[in-house]
Amino acid sequence: MIVTATPGIKQIVREVWKPLALLFVWDVIVTATYFIIPFTAPSLPLTLFGSALVLFLGFRSNSAYQRWWEGRGLWGLMINASRNLARQARNLLPEEAREAKRAIVLHQIAYVHALRCQLRRQKPDTDVTRFLSKGDPALARANIANGLLDGTGRRIDDARRRGWIDTIQQAAMEAVLVDIANAQGGMERLKNTPLPVQYRFFPTLFTHLMCLLLPIGLVETMGLATPLGSTVAGLMFLAVLAIGDDLVDPFDNSPHDLPLSAMCRTIEIDLLQAIGDPAPPPLAPDKAGILW
Amino acid sequence: MIVTATPGIKQIVREVWKPLALLFVWDVIVTATYFIIPFTAPSLPLTLFGSALVLFLGFRSNSAYQRWWEGRGLWGLMINASRNLARQARNLLPEEAREAKRAIVLHQIAYVHALRCQLRRQKPDTDVTRFLSKGDPALARANIANGLLDGTGRRIDDARRRGWIDTIQQAAMEAVLVDIANAQGGMERLKNTPLPVQYRFFPTLFTHLMCLLLPIGLVETMGLATPLGSTVAGLMFLAVLAIGDDLVDPFDNSPHDLPLSAMCRTIEIDLLQAIGDPAPPPLAPDKAGILW
Amino acid sequence: MIVTATPGIKQIVREVWKPLALLFVWDVIVTATYFIIPFTAPSLPLTLFGSALVLFLGFRSNSAYQRWWEGRGLWGLMINASRNLARQARNLLPEEAREAKRAIVLHQIAYVHALRCQLRRQKPDTDVTRFLSKGDPALARANIANGLLDGTGRRIDDARRRGWIDTIQQAAMEAVLVDIANAQGGMERLKNTPLPVQYRFFPTLFTHLMCLLLPIGLVETMGLATPLGSTVAGLMFLAVLAIGDDLVDPFDNSPHDLPLSAMCRTIEIDLLQAIGDPAPPPLAPDKAGILW
Amino acid sequence: MIVTATPGIKQIVREVWKPLALLFVWDVIVTATYFIIPFTAPSLPLTLFGSALVLFLGFRSNSAYQRWWEGRGLWGLMINASRNLARQARNLLPEEAREAKRAIVLHQIAYVHALRCQLRRQKPDTDVTRFLSKGDPALARANIANGLLDGTGRRIDDARRRGWIDTIQQAAMEAVLVDIANAQGGMERLKNTPLPVQYRFFPTLFTHLMCLLLPIGLVETMGLATPLGSTVAGLMFLAVLAIGDDLVDPFDNSPHDLPLSAMCRTIEIDLLQAIGDPAPPPLAPDKAGILW
Amino acid sequence: MIVTATPGIKQIVREVWKPLALLFVWDVIVTATYFIIPFTAPSLPLTLFGSALVLFLGFRSNSAYQRWWEGRGLWGLMINASRNLARQARNLLPEEAREAKRAIVLHQIAYVHALRCQLRRQKPDTDVTRFLSKGDPALARANIANGLLDGTGRRIDDARRRGWIDTIQQAAMEAVLVDIANAQGGMERLKNTPLPVQYRFFPTLFTHLMCLLLPIGLVETMGLATPLGSTVAGLMFLAVLAIGDDLVDPFDNSPHDLPLSAMCRTIEIDLLQAIGDPAPPPLAPDKAGILW
Repeated sequence: MIVTATPGIKQIVREVWKPLALLFVWDVIVTATYFIIPFTAPSLPLTLFGSALVLFLGFRSNSAYQRWWEGRGLWGLMINASRNLARQARNLLPEEAREAKRAIVLHQIAYVHALRCQLRRQKPDTDVTRFLSKGDPALARANIANGLLDGTGRRIDDARRRGWIDTIQQAAMEAVLVDIANAQGGMERLKNTPLPVQYRFFPTLFTHLMCLLLPIGLVETMGLATPLGSTVAGLMFLAVLAIGDDLVDPFDNSPHDLPLSAMCRTIEIDLLQAIGDPAPPPLAPDKAGILW
Repeated sequence: MIVTATPGIKQIVREVWKPLALLFVWDVIVTATYFIIPFTAPSLPLTLFGSALVLFLGFRSNSAYQRWWEGRGLWGLMINASRNLARQARNLLPEEAREAKRAIVLHQIAYVHALRCQLRRQKPDTDVTRFLSKGDPALARANIANGLLDGTGRRIDDARRRGWIDTIQQAAMEAVLVDIANAQGGMERLKNTPLPVQYRFFPTLFTHLMCLLLPIGLVETMGLATPLGSTVAGLMFLAVLAIGDDLVDPFDNSPHDLPLSAMCRTIEIDLLQAIGDPAPPPLAPDKAGILW
Repeated sequence: MIVTATPGIKQIVREVWKPLALLFVWDVIVTATYFIIPFTAPSLPLTLFGSALVLFLGFRSNSAYQRWWEGRGLWGLMINASRNLARQARNLLPEEAREAKRAIVLHQIAYVHALRCQLRRQKPDTDVTRFLSKGDPALARANIANGLLDGTGRRIDDARRRGWIDTIQQAAMEAVLVDIANAQGGMERLKNTPLPVQYRFFPTLFTHLMCLLLPIGLVETMGLATPLGSTVAGLMFLAVLAIGDDLVDPFDNSPHDLPLSAMCRTIEIDLLQAIGDPAPPPLAPDKAGILW
Repeated sequence: MIVTATPGIKQIVREVWKPLALLFVWDVIVTATYFIIPFTAPSLPLTLFGSALVLFLGFRSNSAYQRWWEGRGLWGLMINASRNLARQARNLLPEEAREAKRAIVLHQIAYVHALRCQLRRQKPDTDVTRFLSKGDPALARANIANGLLDGTGRRIDDARRRGWIDTIQQAAMEAVLVDIANAQGGMERLKNTPLPVQYRFFPTLFTHLMCLLLPIGLVETMGLATPLGSTVAGLMFLAVLAIGDDLVDPFDNSPHDLPLSAMCRTIEIDLLQAIGDPAPPPLAPDKAGILW
Repeated sequence: MIVTATPGIKQIVREVWKPLALLFVWDVIVTATYFIIPFTAPSLPLTLFGSALVLFLGFRSNSAYQRWWEGRGLWGLMINASRNLARQARNLLPEEAREAKRAIVLHQIAYVHALRCQLRRQKPDTDVTRFLSKGDPALARANIANGLLDGTGRRIDDARRRGWIDTIQQAAMEAVLVDIANAQGGMERLKNTPLPVQYRFFPTLFTHLMCLLLPIGLVETMGLATPLGSTVAGLMFLAVLAIGDDLVDPFDNSPHDLPLSAMCRTIEIDLLQAIGDPAPPPLAPDKAGILW
């Protein structure tokens, strides 16, 4: 996620110069053609077409934004649930269960890192394995995060069997595990369900068509100013189109996705401090102003 | 659900060539007529009509998308709840209840397959019966999935009667059953409640009318370019109309519905691995890029 | 609710022929007047007026649809909660409480029928009284459904007093009663709260005004085609207006309301089969394709 | 809230005649001026300005409606929670706690009346004090309703101390108190948080500006029909503006607010009948069709 | 938050005079140029550009408003949860635990003040430290509010260990802590997640471009009235743009943010009165009508 208050001109230029240049070249070609072989092109269909396109693109970028924001909300729930789990582990389990407390909290840290890797389609990195024993059975599961959560459930039930907590306290902790499982399920839903194919294909097709038609419709009235005018208008349509593409997958490991690494670090700090361990500093944006 | 990043040109062509051809033929007829018997047709009502139609279609495809997305969300809840049930069965029930654990988990797998068949209006297939005994009373119920859930509730209460779990643990598991029943109820609501009849009838009527009127309104200003212009504009309206039709029933067993089979397989894998059984591989999209 | 895939032409014609005829007559009058006493009428205000009207109508039919859909969702919750109550009654209460189980389930069936009658402003019919004893105190309450729910609460507490369930199991069942009460409250909210008066008055006023002004604004440019053009455009505005009226009260006992009778029957079937009783068949749409 | 099916013409005329008259006078002045000193005024900026204004007003009346509907939803939750509290008080507490049951139910009635007075910025009326003893400590609190809820919590805990209910039943009742506190908090949020200042200032400014500019922009094309045309168009903008003002504060003791008194009476009836006391009749709309 | 019913003209003028003046100067320059060196500039692209811009700005101010309103909702939940915690502390804990009750309530007051400071990126002020002992371990945490919540959890568990409450009552109080943690997490999510960069960059760019193009497109038809007309239209676009900037961060310590200080004071009053302590008066708006 780009977090600089105003994105650097560089960043913007780097992203849009290519379509901008193509657009401008096309607009110049059309204008030149018009002055060589004049043609007439009424603007009415452009207006009709434009208003339908605006609706289409508006809906799509709206949906993409909602997916992005839902993804952020789900990670927010994950942060909350991790804190709740740590607070309960620390407070509900007795002094003598010091080791079990630590294990629950450290496995939760491993869990969020594992989930991050799964969502970004990466192999589990050292952040995952750091807090796990080598032979942890979760590592053999297709869904490692799921396996780690099962392990936490087992640890909590083990605490009950030893008489450290009663079934009511277990139920309270189990409710937090349900929150965690639900947040994970929601993230996997976003990851595994692209927008319907129509919203991936038609907006792109129609936007590019619009960019092609714009100078043809405008040249008669705008004359030599056509390349400028239709490049600016075309840029706006391309910008809205790009928003849809950038936000639609919030866990994509691109500059526009959500800062999963930073959020995992936040959880790590909160949880380590909750059990009194030293914590690493929070992640900072890189030089380009991107927080990963 | 079509999951290929960019849908094949073939797929798109196959879906739209028919209306496109019809549209083009009509546009050519109108244009030809105009050059034989010139007529005048002002464009104002087209603009008025068009903007009202855009609103109408926009609302409809929006509602259809929300139904589709809600259907996906409900299946997501089902995946989460199934995992929660399996985790609780495994952790809360004692070692000696090994058979009861397995029964709860395997019946949950049968449950989601039965629900899938019900939603797609299919007979229960072998995936349903595979994990059930022949005389399971649920198979005689009008709503088989419901009967299976009742059976799971009975199994959990049986565990309580034997003293394997106490009533608090039972309440925690019962809360998961409530989640499952609510998700199922939501899916049946989507399946059994079509959009209001006005949203099924009028958008189709008005869109087709628009396609008929488009060349008449445009021919005076566009001349020979009319067939091209009004086919493109008409295609856009037809595309938005089609989205509504494709997404409105997310459990329809069509290329545009939700991948219920793949999600049931995901649940099967997660649950089998949770009890340490060998699991089948996840479902992959077919050659046309469709995940069922 | 009209459930036929494509509504019969008859149904549609029956609903719209009256305004359509009136509209056409007016359009013909205006056109005739124009050819007798020519007048000029610019179209700009029509465009301005039209776009504001589209916004107004769009908002209203959107709100009406949301009320309709919320009503359906609340009945969905009622179906779920009824199933949950039946499952818990059957599983949590012991064998010896056979009569109490039956009473809870049968009273729940009476409850949903009573609620249906209340929402449709009908007297409680035989479906309500069928499962109740004559002197049931609930029948004397202003809100019969409420009284029946209180009775179920009493029956559950009675089961606790006899030692059939403990307070934890009672709390689980009480939570389902809270769900039921909340769904009922939501339905009564929809029934008792019409749209704000402005949304009932102004859209109707402005739509009718628009239909009056349409031919005046169009006749100058459309000439003899005016009656056709402005009737079609007017029909669209009237159609959107009608949607708002049809959907705004989802419990209205009209062809466009929700199929409460059919949903009550669904609950009846599910609950009777859950206690092993014979169940009636589901309700089918009537000849006109309407499911009540 | 105005509940008559179609609001009386009187009511509408009374509300809009003033701006309507002012608007008409201004339109006549502009038209007269035009015929004395002709001026040219292009209509393009009017269209641009109009479409931006429509967006602005649309958003505002949408937000206002959502606040109004959320306010209604919160009172709906209050009705549900009051019923749940009464049902639990009656069923969970034993026969011997007859006085405690009555006290909890009657204090809940006082509570909703106190909340109604607070939201309408009125002093607590006799409906509040009717069921309270003179020296009730809640009456000394800044937030009386809050104090009454604390009292109910104390009464429930007292029942537990006497052994009438156990802590599980207490937890169930406490959960209802949390529901009540949340509904109250939501209502206070709506009451204390006006729309952002921009949405209060700019829409009014721009709408009035629009009304001033309308005849200037239209007179050239509409001639003598200008006063009529621009009064009608202006009325529409004023109507949408008024909706925002009317609905934005749903607890305002105006004809357009929510019927708090009637809803409090509904709660009173339900609760008194639940404990077998005689109940007053429901409130009816006054002669002007307004339900307070 | 500005709470005066109608914001002072001063306030508005102070905020908008700068862009207004710049806009006007530019409009005058363009108009003057036109009368010196006439040029032609068609208005069509302006309409197209304008409608796309309206969509863009509309979406952005909509999102900003939703963030602002969600922020308010989360603080509302915090107020509710604080009241619930105080009520439970007072009622569930026995008389002898007087000190523990006070500690829980006073720490909750410190907690909301700490959270306010964190959200506004301020150092914890005396309102935070007033109720804390010097060596409170929470003050050493990166997230002080989090540390205070952990402390409350410990105090509640301590009450259980001493036998003042049982685990069921503890679970009820723990559920309130989960509510508090979730509200805090939601606020931090809003604070730490700006709108996607595209919504920060492009709307500003395109709005400024629009203001530059407006007089060029209008001067041909509006002549000498251009500066007036395009300043008014430009002001509207700038106003909508400003709304987005003002509301996007609801915890910003600016005149347009949420009144966190006032809400913390509300909590302080409610909680102090709940334990019978003297409470300060509520915060009032300052002379400029701003409630902080």
